[in-house]
Amino acid sequence: MKNQTTPAAGKPHGITTGPLPGSRKVHAAGTLHPVRVPMREIAVTGEAPLTVYDSSGPYTDPTASIDIAAGLPDSRGDWQLNRGDVAPVAARPVHPADNGFATGTRLTPAFPRRVEPLRATGGRAVTQLAYARAGIVTPEMEFVAIRENEGRTIARIRDGEAFGAAIPDLVTPEFVRAEIAAGRAIIPANINHRELEPVIIGRNFKVKINANIGNSAVTSGMEEEVEKMVWAIRWGADTVMDLSTGRNIHNIRDWILRNSPVPIGTVPLYQALEKVGGIAEDLTWEIFRDTLIEQAEQGVDYFTIHAGLRLHMIPMTARRVTGIVSRGGSIMAKWCLTHHRESFLYEHFDEICDICRAYDVSFSLGDGLRPGSIADANDEAQFAELRTLGELTKIAWAKDCQVMIEGPGHVPMHKIKANMDEQLKHCHEAPFYTLGPLTTDIAPGYDHITSAIGAAMIGWFGTAMLCYVTPKEHLGLPDRDDVKTGVITYKLAAHAADLAKGHPGAQARDDALSRARFDFRWQDQFNLGLDPDTARSMHDETLPAEAHKVAHFCSMCGPKFCSMKISQDIRAEAEKRAGMEQMADRFRAAGEIYIPAEEAEAAK
Amino acid sequence: MKNQTTPAAGKPHGITTGPLPGSRKVHAAGTLHPVRVPMREIAVTGEAPLTVYDSSGPYTDPTASIDIAAGLPDSRGDWQLNRGDVAPVAARPVHPADNGFATGTRLTPAFPRRVEPLRATGGRAVTQLAYARAGIVTPEMEFVAIRENEGRTIARIRDGEAFGAAIPDLVTPEFVRAEIAAGRAIIPANINHRELEPVIIGRNFKVKINANIGNSAVTSGMEEEVEKMVWAIRWGADTVMDLSTGRNIHNIRDWILRNSPVPIGTVPLYQALEKVGGIAEDLTWEIFRDTLIEQAEQGVDYFTIHAGLRLHMIPMTARRVTGIVSRGGSIMAKWCLTHHRESFLYEHFDEICDICRAYDVSFSLGDGLRPGSIADANDEAQFAELRTLGELTKIAWAKDCQVMIEGPGHVPMHKIKANMDEQLKHCHEAPFYTLGPLTTDIAPGYDHITSAIGAAMIGWFGTAMLCYVTPKEHLGLPDRDDVKTGVITYKLAAHAADLAKGHPGAQARDDALSRARFDFRWQDQFNLGLDPDTARSMHDETLPAEAHKVAHFCSMCGPKFCSMKISQDIRAEAEKRAGMEQMADRFRAAGEIYIPAEEAEAAK
Repeated sequence: MKNQTTPAAGKPHGITTGPLPGSRKVHAAGTLHPVRVPMREIAVTGEAPLTVYDSSGPYTDPTASIDIAAGLPDSRGDWQLNRGDVAPVAARPVHPADNGFATGTRLTPAFPRRVEPLRATGGRAVTQLAYARAGIVTPEMEFVAIRENEGRTIARIRDGEAFGAAIPDLVTPEFVRAEIAAGRAIIPANINHRELEPVIIGRNFKVKINANIGNSAVTSGMEEEVEKMVWAIRWGADTVMDLSTGRNIHNIRDWILRNSPVPIGTVPLYQALEKVGGIAEDLTWEIFRDTLIEQAEQGVDYFTIHAGLRLHMIPMTARRVTGIVSRGGSIMAKWCLTHHRESFLYEHFDEICDICRAYDVSFSLGDGLRPGSIADANDEAQFAELRTLGELTKIAWAKDCQVMIEGPGHVPMHKIKANMDEQLKHCHEAPFYTLGPLTTDIAPGYDHITSAIGAAMIGWFGTAMLCYVTPKEHLGLPDRDDVKTGVITYKLAAHAADLAKGHPGAQARDDALSRARFDFRWQDQFNLGLDPDTARSMHDETLPAEAHKVAHFCSMCGPKFCSMKISQDIRAEAEKRAGMEQMADRFRAAGEIYIPAEEAEAAK
Repeated sequence: MKNQTTPAAGKPHGITTGPLPGSRKVHAAGTLHPVRVPMREIAVTGEAPLTVYDSSGPYTDPTASIDIAAGLPDSRGDWQLNRGDVAPVAARPVHPADNGFATGTRLTPAFPRRVEPLRATGGRAVTQLAYARAGIVTPEMEFVAIRENEGRTIARIRDGEAFGAAIPDLVTPEFVRAEIAAGRAIIPANINHRELEPVIIGRNFKVKINANIGNSAVTSGMEEEVEKMVWAIRWGADTVMDLSTGRNIHNIRDWILRNSPVPIGTVPLYQALEKVGGIAEDLTWEIFRDTLIEQAEQGVDYFTIHAGLRLHMIPMTARRVTGIVSRGGSIMAKWCLTHHRESFLYEHFDEICDICRAYDVSFSLGDGLRPGSIADANDEAQFAELRTLGELTKIAWAKDCQVMIEGPGHVPMHKIKANMDEQLKHCHEAPFYTLGPLTTDIAPGYDHITSAIGAAMIGWFGTAMLCYVTPKEHLGLPDRDDVKTGVITYKLAAHAADLAKGHPGAQARDDALSRARFDFRWQDQFNLGLDPDTARSMHDETLPAEAHKVAHFCSMCGPKFCSMKISQDIRAEAEKRAGMEQMADRFRAAGEIYIPAEEAEAAK
């Protein structure tokens, strides 16, 4: 694949590239470290351009050379090596089981470039948490600090209810360090994911969103999976989870990681289960452990580990309407029950930490007992597991591992706040990462919306990252359109949360778009929105002519009925008139009684 | 158009008829009055059928004869006449201006049947409020009481935070009467809308939704407009507002009313403006007054009247980002400013009440100064108008008129609660009827979602009716798909609100659907959802075979990974095992430390 030099979006060799409409890639430089932080600048007619957060990576940069067989450039290698606490090790050999014993044409080719993975030397912790605690501001920390400010150098309008969050006017590298040291934020950044543009997840930062991708039993090609990731980040996914099952898991993951500028998360249990032919009871700690090392060496940035689901909690799900709906949770429950033993994830959690700290794989402690229906929300099983996740958080922190906590699920609105409160209390302010929650069960086909309601609310209350839900939830595998719909829906929910928390930079985009709307600058209105293409095409359905892009009305009301047009006329009229304020005072003084018509007439 | 006898949905002569999948129309009889209340019964495999609220009218009843040129049957005529306080009057003649001077082929034909309108005799108030205050339980009150219970005879699960709402376990006719007498609820039911199936709007009842329809400057046919209404109520719209502008407003409204089982609302100012050629400053009280009578005689159930926007408030909008975004508000502001006079709607509000009480047209007091952007939310202009709406509420109540209050608009999440609190305080608990609110401005093309977040929240806090927003908001005229998306989105938001308020009947549907999901009863899962057609088609995209409708897995995870399947296996396993509880106790007693592996092994 060759350099994309045209500004329009293209899709050479199946990968979508090119900037979003009206946008260009800009970079800000660090002062402490040689970091180069990408942002997106949206041109606005008659105003300064608006700089916004940009998760899309080099794919939207027309000057970048995109070749998925080469992968993205190694932008972090020196950072890590400069710390002197890692060394290349011989890579774990790839076994046939890693790819589900796929052979011949069914085998997805290995990624062409293979480098020796890095690993901590001397049992050291090479995590952002370890550095933060040691008072070190890493390049990753400076990178995310610059990134969070979105080009702001002064505080903008602040107005919100933060529920105890403390978002600074401007994020400094030292603030990032302190938040990580306190466990309130994480930068998922495996030392072997050198293509990464670091992202911070914590409630004192912008609310992030995750998109899930992954093939299922049917093989899909590496290009298709890379394109899913590129497509998701183009629309705003901050992290991507590869939830692949079936064959070729190892090789496809390599293709995704080598081409991903965003953190990649996985559920290692899925691959481990494939290695034992899908029989949960055949899982062993040894197979699981080996899978962790395999994935850590590849560069996976965070692992979902369902270590909080313990044997004694399983009976608590017996009277649930929907039992255990987490895949990882149900696998572990089956294992525990069959062997009548405590979960090997819980029992070996110390050792799991030892692996994660050697590569800086962050924990996403899985909620295997999350409710799968309104009826099961906030029940004994869910909160018992949450308290165990709090215990595990402390164990991980003692090992200098970064931790976030996964949350529900299906929760009616009045029970959402308790989820956040309980999480803050029992998990010691470790970042919360929730799936929705869905606020009703009755709208299959619309669960991106039932869940966006809950996601916006829990984001407001303090959740740091929202896992998207697509319209296909409960019904089937999301296609390209579903992925985009899910990502845009979650971007708007995350933004609504930022606004309500009083994030100092959030309202600037709303205001710029609303000014464009009021001034009938249609192109600006499209370009400042989350999905310029859809906005433009909806507008074009009724008023396709280019001339209508500057029309002072739209198809909804037509020119005579346009309130914004009338409102502009009023404003012009008001500016002409002196004494309008005085007249208004007079009417105000008249208070709550009618002004006699003749008097009002005389007052003209 | 002929009788629809097939159970499948059809569209004879442009009107969609036939039941929803798995559903049949049932009727419940009154005990005080000869009312016959329609409901929808959804068949469920292996369970009792679920009865749900049904706004769709006779169109989903295969035994009903549908002929839009005949209109729906007169189901209320006797109720009103029996009260002895109304009499037919000679109808106001239809003027050419009423239809925008359309002639020849551009003129939509008049509705074939014309009856003499009813009007109160002797200056009486013939409103539900007047009857309620007099201690009379009308047939309309009994109808809505039965309707609200959805076939329940006992209270179901209750669990919520109602913020001062007081929803009874079962709604009685007397409860309805008392709520209406207190002004906390309304039944918009013009005595000339005899085709109506009454609906109650108030915060101690199920949250309702409104859908807007209407042609704009371009002429559309009467059949097309009737179909828009039928389509909107098929998916759950509780009321429909006809916001037509342009030509043929009078005749199209007649076609809609004569075929509508749901309350129809209008903004009479739109038609009045058409009568003066679209020149706001040429509006007069006389033209407006005549339009009210014209529409009241036709049977419009509620009028949006922007009487709260007063001259002295206009300067308060000068520094807004988006000025005045209400169409009615901007028209009145222009009128006030041009003439430099107080609004004729405010000055003549007494007389407007006199008209409304003679037909029982309910007020929907318009928020002409609602915010059109996040920046303008909860500002001085908005709340000044709200307080005036509270004044007007008292004037209307003194005239025995039913009142609801319109609300915003664009409001970030943290400012939503204040809208409800201020409305309750200043408008004396009159029902609140809000447009969204949209929780961010940055997602044109997705404003059904930005607003569903706000709508669900404000519905929870106490808003009685939510005005839908479609994906085309701000961009163009909604088409058929947009209308459906808007209605379903708002139904799910209203239901999320009912759940969170602890409505005693709400969770039954979630539970039935979730049980179906857990049991892999795919057809039940589709049919119990708000949009069975979409759910089914999404499922079929990946697993089209009929055999998969009973498969114990879906395409998302496949059979090996299905958590629900594993969970069922676990449950079966658990039931077999004795002693599992004891084992669990042992682990629980072990507390927060690891069980040594050998001990756990020995314990097997």
